[in-house]
Amino acid sequence: MDTNDVKKRFDYVVNSLSSPTSYGQVCHEHYDNEPLPSIDVLKEIVEKVRQLIFPGFYGFIPLNTNTLKYYTGLLVDQVYESLVDQVLAGLCFSCNQKRSMSLLSERQKKSKDITIRFIESIPYLREMLSKDVEAAFLNDPAASHRGEVVFSYPSIKAICNYRIANKLYQLGVPMIPRIISELAHSETGIDIHPLANIGESFSIDHGTGVVVGSTCIIGDRVQLFQGVTLGAKSFPLDENGNPIKGVPRHPIVEDDVVIYSNATILGRITVGHHATIGGNVWVTEDVMPYGRVIQGRSRIEKFNDGGGI
Amino acid sequence: MDTNDVKKRFDYVVNSLSSPTSYGQVCHEHYDNEPLPSIDVLKEIVEKVRQLIFPGFYGFIPLNTNTLKYYTGLLVDQVYESLVDQVLAGLCFSCNQKRSMSLLSERQKKSKDITIRFIESIPYLREMLSKDVEAAFLNDPAASHRGEVVFSYPSIKAICNYRIANKLYQLGVPMIPRIISELAHSETGIDIHPLANIGESFSIDHGTGVVVGSTCIIGDRVQLFQGVTLGAKSFPLDENGNPIKGVPRHPIVEDDVVIYSNATILGRITVGHHATIGGNVWVTEDVMPYGRVIQGRSRIEKFNDGGGI
Amino acid sequence: MDTNDVKKRFDYVVNSLSSPTSYGQVCHEHYDNEPLPSIDVLKEIVEKVRQLIFPGFYGFIPLNTNTLKYYTGLLVDQVYESLVDQVLAGLCFSCNQKRSMSLLSERQKKSKDITIRFIESIPYLREMLSKDVEAAFLNDPAASHRGEVVFSYPSIKAICNYRIANKLYQLGVPMIPRIISELAHSETGIDIHPLANIGESFSIDHGTGVVVGSTCIIGDRVQLFQGVTLGAKSFPLDENGNPIKGVPRHPIVEDDVVIYSNATILGRITVGHHATIGGNVWVTEDVMPYGRVIQGRSRIEKFNDGGGI
Amino acid sequence: MDTNDVKKRFDYVVNSLSSPTSYGQVCHEHYDNEPLPSIDVLKEIVEKVRQLIFPGFYGFIPLNTNTLKYYTGLLVDQVYESLVDQVLAGLCFSCNQKRSMSLLSERQKKSKDITIRFIESIPYLREMLSKDVEAAFLNDPAASHRGEVVFSYPSIKAICNYRIANKLYQLGVPMIPRIISELAHSETGIDIHPLANIGESFSIDHGTGVVVGSTCIIGDRVQLFQGVTLGAKSFPLDENGNPIKGVPRHPIVEDDVVIYSNATILGRITVGHHATIGGNVWVTEDVMPYGRVIQGRSRIEKFNDGGGI
Amino acid sequence: MDTNDVKKRFDYVVNSLSSPTSYGQVCHEHYDNEPLPSIDVLKEIVEKVRQLIFPGFYGFIPLNTNTLKYYTGLLVDQVYESLVDQVLAGLCFSCNQKRSMSLLSERQKKSKDITIRFIESIPYLREMLSKDVEAAFLNDPAASHRGEVVFSYPSIKAICNYRIANKLYQLGVPMIPRIISELAHSETGIDIHPLANIGESFSIDHGTGVVVGSTCIIGDRVQLFQGVTLGAKSFPLDENGNPIKGVPRHPIVEDDVVIYSNATILGRITVGHHATIGGNVWVTEDVMPYGRVIQGRSRIEKFNDGGGI
Amino acid sequence: MDTNDVKKRFDYVVNSLSSPTSYGQVCHEHYDNEPLPSIDVLKEIVEKVRQLIFPGFYGFIPLNTNTLKYYTGLLVDQVYESLVDQVLAGLCFSCNQKRSMSLLSERQKKSKDITIRFIESIPYLREMLSKDVEAAFLNDPAASHRGEVVFSYPSIKAICNYRIANKLYQLGVPMIPRIISELAHSETGIDIHPLANIGESFSIDHGTGVVVGSTCIIGDRVQLFQGVTLGAKSFPLDENGNPIKGVPRHPIVEDDVVIYSNATILGRITVGHHATIGGNVWVTEDVMPYGRVIQGRSRIEKFNDGGGI
Repeated sequence: MDTNDVKKRFDYVVNSLSSPTSYGQVCHEHYDNEPLPSIDVLKEIVEKVRQLIFPGFYGFIPLNTNTLKYYTGLLVDQVYESLVDQVLAGLCFSCNQKRSMSLLSERQKKSKDITIRFIESIPYLREMLSKDVEAAFLNDPAASHRGEVVFSYPSIKAICNYRIANKLYQLGVPMIPRIISELAHSETGIDIHPLANIGESFSIDHGTGVVVGSTCIIGDRVQLFQGVTLGAKSFPLDENGNPIKGVPRHPIVEDDVVIYSNATILGRITVGHHATIGGNVWVTEDVMPYGRVIQGRSRIEKFNDGGGI
Repeated sequence: MDTNDVKKRFDYVVNSLSSPTSYGQVCHEHYDNEPLPSIDVLKEIVEKVRQLIFPGFYGFIPLNTNTLKYYTGLLVDQVYESLVDQVLAGLCFSCNQKRSMSLLSERQKKSKDITIRFIESIPYLREMLSKDVEAAFLNDPAASHRGEVVFSYPSIKAICNYRIANKLYQLGVPMIPRIISELAHSETGIDIHPLANIGESFSIDHGTGVVVGSTCIIGDRVQLFQGVTLGAKSFPLDENGNPIKGVPRHPIVEDDVVIYSNATILGRITVGHHATIGGNVWVTEDVMPYGRVIQGRSRIEKFNDGGGI
Repeated sequence: MDTNDVKKRFDYVVNSLSSPTSYGQVCHEHYDNEPLPSIDVLKEIVEKVRQLIFPGFYGFIPLNTNTLKYYTGLLVDQVYESLVDQVLAGLCFSCNQKRSMSLLSERQKKSKDITIRFIESIPYLREMLSKDVEAAFLNDPAASHRGEVVFSYPSIKAICNYRIANKLYQLGVPMIPRIISELAHSETGIDIHPLANIGESFSIDHGTGVVVGSTCIIGDRVQLFQGVTLGAKSFPLDENGNPIKGVPRHPIVEDDVVIYSNATILGRITVGHHATIGGNVWVTEDVMPYGRVIQGRSRIEKFNDGGGI
Repeated sequence: MDTNDVKKRFDYVVNSLSSPTSYGQVCHEHYDNEPLPSIDVLKEIVEKVRQLIFPGFYGFIPLNTNTLKYYTGLLVDQVYESLVDQVLAGLCFSCNQKRSMSLLSERQKKSKDITIRFIESIPYLREMLSKDVEAAFLNDPAASHRGEVVFSYPSIKAICNYRIANKLYQLGVPMIPRIISELAHSETGIDIHPLANIGESFSIDHGTGVVVGSTCIIGDRVQLFQGVTLGAKSFPLDENGNPIKGVPRHPIVEDDVVIYSNATILGRITVGHHATIGGNVWVTEDVMPYGRVIQGRSRIEKFNDGGGI
Repeated sequence: MDTNDVKKRFDYVVNSLSSPTSYGQVCHEHYDNEPLPSIDVLKEIVEKVRQLIFPGFYGFIPLNTNTLKYYTGLLVDQVYESLVDQVLAGLCFSCNQKRSMSLLSERQKKSKDITIRFIESIPYLREMLSKDVEAAFLNDPAASHRGEVVFSYPSIKAICNYRIANKLYQLGVPMIPRIISELAHSETGIDIHPLANIGESFSIDHGTGVVVGSTCIIGDRVQLFQGVTLGAKSFPLDENGNPIKGVPRHPIVEDDVVIYSNATILGRITVGHHATIGGNVWVTEDVMPYGRVIQGRSRIEKFNDGGGI
Repeated sequence: MDTNDVKKRFDYVVNSLSSPTSYGQVCHEHYDNEPLPSIDVLKEIVEKVRQLIFPGFYGFIPLNTNTLKYYTGLLVDQVYESLVDQVLAGLCFSCNQKRSMSLLSERQKKSKDITIRFIESIPYLREMLSKDVEAAFLNDPAASHRGEVVFSYPSIKAICNYRIANKLYQLGVPMIPRIISELAHSETGIDIHPLANIGESFSIDHGTGVVVGSTCIIGDRVQLFQGVTLGAKSFPLDENGNPIKGVPRHPIVEDDVVIYSNATILGRITVGHHATIGGNVWVTEDVMPYGRVIQGRSRIEKFNDGGGI
């Protein structure tokens, strides 16, 4: 097949992919020329906020008492400038009102207002995260150093993104927080919904496969291991057969609970304070304070028949 | 130790690593100067195909009715040019024939032919993926928007890579599809083998740890949660003690099945339509249509002895 | 809100974040101007070592018998130059001694010495990894090619990082090995502690969610599947209530063991040679050689009540 | 000197450089937060316009009849989007009016209007430049190919920038055209003021050091060599001793004139059609049509005294 | 004007610029899909050859006796791989024969052959350039170091490009040498035609504006200053009024000549050995060996009338 | 020729280029492993200093009264960190002493000391340059704005580099200043030696081809045009026939002098205050204060014989 022949056949594909009927399938609600959130820009913003919170650990800021303020100031300014646009894109994205100039101008004002309030919360985020680091350090005999926790514990990244995203949700930003939590999910395998409500000194060991659902309430000093699911059972449907949004449907986990790897805890149940959940269990009912749940007995055979199952 | 002394010692390492005996261990079947697939190039190709399927969501294409065709056309052309080379590399990689000029020329023709046919399938891939997006949206009460699904559901990325890779396999491309599915695995923790056979409106929630084996057959409207394994039990060996390749050994999952987190389903069994599999179970036998499987009772204790196991 | 008004409010945030009291929370033990390890630089180093071990598979080195030595030599030199600095940063990071010029000079000498010894071990690392590749190939009927294993098996990346990190630990480098193993964890979902002790021909299929703890001892020809945890139970505390570091607390897994997906094996127990552990089980006691452990019976119901749990 | 001591001394420099009194010296007329033109962005814009005019010669566009429109369309869109902002910055930069919302909104409208009109002139610019290429080709016996002229004649780049800048000036854009012509000056050593008025089929051989002043009028088929100056003599001052702006003060060069290297022609004189100016002459008076001016006799000595002057 | 309205108007421009009639004006002789030379790739090639010739001076190669060979080998291989394609593009570009498969294959063979011969000449190029460096050093009292000459004399870059380009011309490569010499022209203001014939120990001080025409013959130990032109007078036309290509029309400059700044020397004249040409003269006739030419007397006035001309 | 055959022939070239005898020709005085200055790093440093002096004009710093200090502080810190290394490289490069540890440590101290003193001079450099901008603005009727001068006058870049380089020379740095002035030469065609001694309010119009020699002394308010040379005549040789370094050999130009384009002024002569030098003249003798020098009469002919010379 001659190259020119091949390229002639492109027009059909291009026209098909560019026809509004076709791309309308995947861009259902978009208005021409309105800004869309950018995953890449949000990634950069999150990296800069991490650098602000943990100076020196993520590459850009050299740790020196005398010059730290310059690097900090520059990052604050850059985060502000980029985030204003993303917040605006988030507000546009989920707006169902009729478009008008005054609506746009109102939204721009709102974006700036939200963003400066987010910026002003960063010192508080640092405080919260330093407690999370401390908890991870104390819970893990393999950690020889607090700095090691910041450098190499994926849970710190995931909780950092969660605390950023949760703050943005509280300030009224749609869409953007979900993208931020998904960035952490992709990086760490830990999926915490930004709407979840999580207390202080939260720790997750290893973390791959952890899921924390959107209506979870988690107390202080809770410790999870890898593969733990705090999820929903089946949920009520509306008259059209669609799931009803916003109903509390994930667990409440009280203070000082430990949940071992791969445990699945589903539905609006309560795991009482100081309870312990063993690994690989399936829990759909309340657990008493100080209670313990462990998987039923396994079948043990003395000789397997050749290495397989 | 003086720098020059250190560098003198490099020659031994370099010679050792460059000797054919040594690198032959890891590059068993390579012919000098034949092209190798490039993971980085394939990553770019997949990103461009994603941009074509979901314009506006992955950064490069600005969504405007009047100019969309230019961006689309350019991406189509760039995908074609890069993919032709990768398909060729794939064909070379797994070829056991004796090398000749006519073989090379035949393969080049074949690469172009396959690639143009892949390009022509992109509108169909968009159609399939828009159904997957719809399914994810309907199944998740936490999703407030279809656009949110595209922006932040890892399963959409994983299924997108799967549908691309599966199409390439159908067109006769070796190696490349596996690399493409592994790219999604690394990004999302979801590992779908490109040879698996998956129906419409497929959804995976959260997804980390999901494994779908190469001989799986999955119906329409199937929903998986994180950590679900559709795997193989032990498999028959040939006379040399090597596993026999290509034998059907993974589950058949019929239409409208739901499988909860961390369930492990192994072997060539059938999970009947409308069945529900609870979390953390180990299933190695057929499940009836409309059946339900839940983990055996856990051991529950009122007081744990100090927070541990 | 006027832009200038917004920017005036930055000073408060910047001062707060730059005050030693505030950042001291997260940078507990840092000395002004001492080098910190760089995650980005370590990422590059690991990529270059991978290229050295598997030439041609990761993009930079063209596979040609006559020129391979040049590319190899250059990478060796670049790895050396970057790694010396990272090793030094690691030594500084975890040093509690009083700072002095002679201490610095001694550490610089030590960094060079360690690094050259690491460089000299790369041919050995290649040998070990080629056995790991062979094991993965033989264990997986879906692999049609050894090269496919190198290109697309995340376990190879994870084991490669483990073997690099473990070697660095043996040579006395602190911190750096943990960051290297976490890089693999983020990329693959496989979390192998660099202190673990792992034999030859080790294979992990799919791998997402696998955790191998720091005091594990693993024999030859062991095969793990995704989601397997080799972890610790609760651990002894010292008089201050902190976990005692360094106590053996993870499993010993003898030769020729197979462990299926999502099995959780906790504590200093021994899984005897040739044993098989089924998926989703919770094991906290010794398993006999040639033994088999399978999850207890599930509850099976003929009709579920509408698709949910 | 200890590093911390050094860094303490930075504050003095930073405060000094950041004080409005100090930077006001160099940023005389700037309003806080108003956009400034960006030299880097303008460089990219010019490169893209060059690619549009000479497809295939500057790297990005592959020359294929079937796909050219996609690449062209994308570049047109990107040039438009970037140029709108630069035109706006140019309008702000030289505006002396009191700032207001309605002024800003009017300027934004004007920027879009100007930019689309510029875009629509690109086909005309191509036509003019193809005549300039033809002239260069015919005038130079060393050129073996028209394509060679486009690829390697600096004059084509310089004239291209001039024609772009001149068009923008005609459309009422301040500042931006001067930056664009200076980009060509830096790249080629040819300095053509965007306000100059230059006819068709203009050619410059080699070109380094050529200067064409802002009130020059140049006819058709004029050929210059390197180092030619078409400049101003001294100019009238206003009552404050400042030069009066905008007075015609550079030469008029009629059709079919040739000017050899390093000739300096100053003031509002006329060089008549078909005249020839020899190299290294100093001309401050009118030259007749068909006239010729050559430098006065040199002093020639038979023996120099050792190689020097 | 609404954004969508603007973008609708793009189609006219795009169609106009993409129509073969329009772009045919500037791409007169191009065949669809044939490779074009790339200025950016040639720039990289030249930079790598410079690094090979002057290791350590242009950034990439660290100067260490033990590792130099690795960096050298890698650059040699990379230069070869890139240059083969550029030579092929050059051969295609100026080919007027009818296209055929056998022609293409013959050209590919020729490209490889030429390129390897070029590679093999690099040691010779280094020898020649080291003599040029020595000459520059001895001729300039301001140079305190030979290394200073390599680091900061533009003439060394220009002569380096000339010697590369000239070698490629000798090996039969069209187009590419002209682009390479123009790269130096843009960087340094020195324009040496690759066909010129230049002896050993050639030096140019400052250099901006120097022009050396294509049929120049220059002896050994010649020294030029900035702004010197060795050019052509008017040239004979053929019956169509086009310049006749290839006629000797530039000066012959014999050994040990010095030419001062801005001298213009035109036509096929001979400047005899050991002659000195003063600055700013216009020379169109032979100069005797050991002769000296100086500009005629200037007009000197005691008082100017206010600073101007 | 087969690819493998080609690559076999590389070894000869590589060995030849890597042999100390061969590269010793061009790296005469280098010690293994000593740092070399880096042209690329110096380019970045100069760009950052320009940004510090002219905030807002070169892209990185957004002009806002409230945040300017952060950007300024960061650039100051980055310039310091990079420049310390370059100053050290410069000190090593031109050192002829025997290498020792104490020498290295002394040089490191000296580098820091010099660099901090350079940093502290930046506010003064801004003051000087703002006078140069003012002079250029007042001297050029085509400039409509002081900002236009900063944005688009190459002379400002060249004078800026000169003032930086000259300050470094005064502080005792070898090599580095020459590279910095050559960077400006390449960018602008203006070649000012860093050792020249230049007063306030210096302006150069257009500038291509201007040369200012190392022992020049230039007063206040001097104005040069393009192509002006302030150079040396032949110079005295020492007993070995090498030029004697450091002898005053370039012109003294007093206050308020104007020199028109392409004038060549050679030797240790004095051009008196308020003198005017016309274009294209050759001056080797003193010019009186208020004097004027103009080129001798040209030969003017009424009819040229066909457009040529």
